[in-house]
Amino acid sequence: MCRWIAYRGETTALEHYVTEPAHSLISQSIHALESTASINGDGFGLGWYSHHPEPGLYREVRPAWSDENLRYLCRHLQSHLYFAHVRAATGTAVTRPNCHPFACGKWMFMHNGFIGSWNRLRRPVEALISDELYPARIGTTDSEAVFLAILGSGMEHPVAAVEKVLATLTGFVNQTDPGDRLRFTAALSNGKDLYAFRYAVNDRANTLYYRETARGIVIVSEPLDRDKDWLAVPESHVVVALHGERARVLPLFHRHQEAAE
Amino acid sequence: MCRWIAYRGETTALEHYVTEPAHSLISQSIHALESTASINGDGFGLGWYSHHPEPGLYREVRPAWSDENLRYLCRHLQSHLYFAHVRAATGTAVTRPNCHPFACGKWMFMHNGFIGSWNRLRRPVEALISDELYPARIGTTDSEAVFLAILGSGMEHPVAAVEKVLATLTGFVNQTDPGDRLRFTAALSNGKDLYAFRYAVNDRANTLYYRETARGIVIVSEPLDRDKDWLAVPESHVVVALHGERARVLPLFHRHQEAAE
Amino acid sequence: MCRWIAYRGETTALEHYVTEPAHSLISQSIHALESTASINGDGFGLGWYSHHPEPGLYREVRPAWSDENLRYLCRHLQSHLYFAHVRAATGTAVTRPNCHPFACGKWMFMHNGFIGSWNRLRRPVEALISDELYPARIGTTDSEAVFLAILGSGMEHPVAAVEKVLATLTGFVNQTDPGDRLRFTAALSNGKDLYAFRYAVNDRANTLYYRETARGIVIVSEPLDRDKDWLAVPESHVVVALHGERARVLPLFHRHQEAAE
Amino acid sequence: MCRWIAYRGETTALEHYVTEPAHSLISQSIHALESTASINGDGFGLGWYSHHPEPGLYREVRPAWSDENLRYLCRHLQSHLYFAHVRAATGTAVTRPNCHPFACGKWMFMHNGFIGSWNRLRRPVEALISDELYPARIGTTDSEAVFLAILGSGMEHPVAAVEKVLATLTGFVNQTDPGDRLRFTAALSNGKDLYAFRYAVNDRANTLYYRETARGIVIVSEPLDRDKDWLAVPESHVVVALHGERARVLPLFHRHQEAAE
Repeated sequence: MCRWIAYRGETTALEHYVTEPAHSLISQSIHALESTASINGDGFGLGWYSHHPEPGLYREVRPAWSDENLRYLCRHLQSHLYFAHVRAATGTAVTRPNCHPFACGKWMFMHNGFIGSWNRLRRPVEALISDELYPARIGTTDSEAVFLAILGSGMEHPVAAVEKVLATLTGFVNQTDPGDRLRFTAALSNGKDLYAFRYAVNDRANTLYYRETARGIVIVSEPLDRDKDWLAVPESHVVVALHGERARVLPLFHRHQEAAE
Repeated sequence: MCRWIAYRGETTALEHYVTEPAHSLISQSIHALESTASINGDGFGLGWYSHHPEPGLYREVRPAWSDENLRYLCRHLQSHLYFAHVRAATGTAVTRPNCHPFACGKWMFMHNGFIGSWNRLRRPVEALISDELYPARIGTTDSEAVFLAILGSGMEHPVAAVEKVLATLTGFVNQTDPGDRLRFTAALSNGKDLYAFRYAVNDRANTLYYRETARGIVIVSEPLDRDKDWLAVPESHVVVALHGERARVLPLFHRHQEAAE
Repeated sequence: MCRWIAYRGETTALEHYVTEPAHSLISQSIHALESTASINGDGFGLGWYSHHPEPGLYREVRPAWSDENLRYLCRHLQSHLYFAHVRAATGTAVTRPNCHPFACGKWMFMHNGFIGSWNRLRRPVEALISDELYPARIGTTDSEAVFLAILGSGMEHPVAAVEKVLATLTGFVNQTDPGDRLRFTAALSNGKDLYAFRYAVNDRANTLYYRETARGIVIVSEPLDRDKDWLAVPESHVVVALHGERARVLPLFHRHQEAAE
Repeated sequence: MCRWIAYRGETTALEHYVTEPAHSLISQSIHALESTASINGDGFGLGWYSHHPEPGLYREVRPAWSDENLRYLCRHLQSHLYFAHVRAATGTAVTRPNCHPFACGKWMFMHNGFIGSWNRLRRPVEALISDELYPARIGTTDSEAVFLAILGSGMEHPVAAVEKVLATLTGFVNQTDPGDRLRFTAALSNGKDLYAFRYAVNDRANTLYYRETARGIVIVSEPLDRDKDWLAVPESHVVVALHGERARVLPLFHRHQEAAE
């Protein structure tokens, strides 16, 4: 199980939530070992928007906690919208292209979960990627394949595009008896708007929380501290944080979604 | 353009042909820079057979010339049949799973060349891989895809399996006008028999040489020294070095091939 | 706190104690996370003797658990005497030269512990290295410096050489009030004889266990399984497993030591 | 022989001089292979100043030309003063701490050259580092040792501090007969002022060039293009580009130096 954080708000250095001792993803990731015995040492990644329309990425196969480059970057990089992700691999190789986040054009995506039995579903899921976007598949993870499938499903309505792919994936996992499992807790952004999804089939969904202040919104796979202000996102819901608006939490697969975008 | 070496013969330490100063792949690779301006610094790999029926692999994304692990391994590993490969990437990511050689079960493969316009041909070539072998695709190169396609084409007759895949690939590249280019200079082994192919479509084939003595056979992408004993393999030919026999050079796509196996 | 294993006995593949699921260093290292919350993800190393008088080394900065090269090597490498080490860094950089084991000529060494306040003691400890051996200092750890200091202290009597350096280090840490701490649990070999030390000053020593059968001896920082046959080595003792003899456990800093060698 | 570039001027993305196709350090480095047969594939580094008083660093052991992180960072990082360096190792290990630039507090340094016979001079050069700064020695290169020696020599007068260390080093290399060689072509900055030195003993100095416009100054080990505006810096001279002033080229070891600071 990976861990991730997404931020959108005032432009700020990345270090506060990513690398600083008290409340960061990295420190919580090491602390988390004691309680949940999960290791997130199979690579990590950083994605951020700055003056350029396309996001920047920094991905490494080493554990985040020992990477001196990461500490320097998080101190010096400033962004109004960034993702950070520490990976616990679930079968695919530990390579940079398999680390989250993934970027394509202006879009960025990261994921915590898995798509059924990947060996069985890999070909049908990869077939969802359009020919135009297939050259952008530079890794071998289920997450990257799902991201590229989403990008080809009509990004003028991002939530509908995700719903469309999730519906297809749900069909895939339910073709077996008993039904295969799917967990999808993911963040998606175009540099202005931020979306975070919590969904599962035949399984409990991975957790998703957020905290919003006047300065911005932080969405996380697990709370970074014991603060009471973290709000849990229900299963089958999406957090929609559009540019210049406060976040809304909406149910997935409901018509009014598209109005939200 | 990559460079590689394949050895089959008396059990010996790998260092002589891979890392030692005078005649090795690594030293020639650095020396080669002066004459041909090609850099083979996009990772490297070593594959060898020992007491285990499946080969061992050591693959790294760093350049071979600065890898101290490689020097230790080539001094200590002994093998009767091994491959070594230094990579010059042609578009796919520099990751360990994209480094040669590739291994699957008892088979091992490495390649110098390219399969047409990979962005255009990637999907049809990947479709040649059987469902059973698709989980073994852990990288994203054309070379690995071709290897897995070959493995699914009847390895009781390895040369015929390669010919079958090459014929299909030839069809793929000739679908365009003007015809796309294909270069395939590759080595294949099951731990006993060693095969090396030289083939191209709409292009000149990459070079292939070999030198055979009572002690064994060395097959290389380019001669390791100025020795006159290196024999050039003609285009559209295969070197077949069966277990316990001297090597034969046979034309590809001829009936008598199968008799050779 | 690092973890390590040293083996001397019948020539065997390294995989049994290093990478295999049930009883290996790697699997115990991951399992150990649950109980002791220690992470050994700051690089690892393998050192082994084969036909060459000097040992081979394979050291990497990635965690051992995700390194596919390590799995291949442990299956194919066979040795009568090898070391394996997973590192939890205590301040020095995560680089290959800082990973254990260390090798110099025919000698090999690995360590679990620390030498007082390294920032304060680094210069005096490095000064213990002879000019002749100083070029062999390719990393920056306390462990490597102590190894090179030992090598210059008369290796015709290895236990005495270690005692001499430990006595000097003990003097160093006791120069402060309250006394600085030192922990030294280390293995040393020349390819024939195997020595393992357990020592501490102003602190409890890190654990050290061994298990000996007719096939060989395994010495470990912590038992690999719940087998009752593991024998704890007392503090201030050394395990001496000379070539062709059964292991003896002897007190450090006693005259009869030298007779043992 | 390494290659490097230092920039001070208007805040700009790093990509123009570091990674872009036509005129960058990376592309020239690959092109340079054809003419001079030198490989700069033994790691690289980036150092830059932004809103934080201490510079950021990104250093990697892989070749710069295949590092996708580097391309993203050079597009997104903006700076008014940055260094970039591609390394051809001269004996010390290829590790991140051995890659240039080096940073300590607000100071940053990079170097192209070598300090005599490092095995012989390493101990005396390391002895020049003050006890206070010795913990900052995290690598093993001659360059880092010289940087730390300079930092302890009075940074209120940076040129005088460098001259003091160069005078000592000159004494070191001249202790042998025939005199050992020293080459020192280096850049130094505090985030406001930029200094670049060209010096050698018993050898020709490595080249140093600069180009200054209203927008800023670029100082390089070799010209990035065939532009006639590159000015060669004479041997035994320093380029002094103080904050808000145009660059001056001054002879080393002359009294008026200090007035310049």
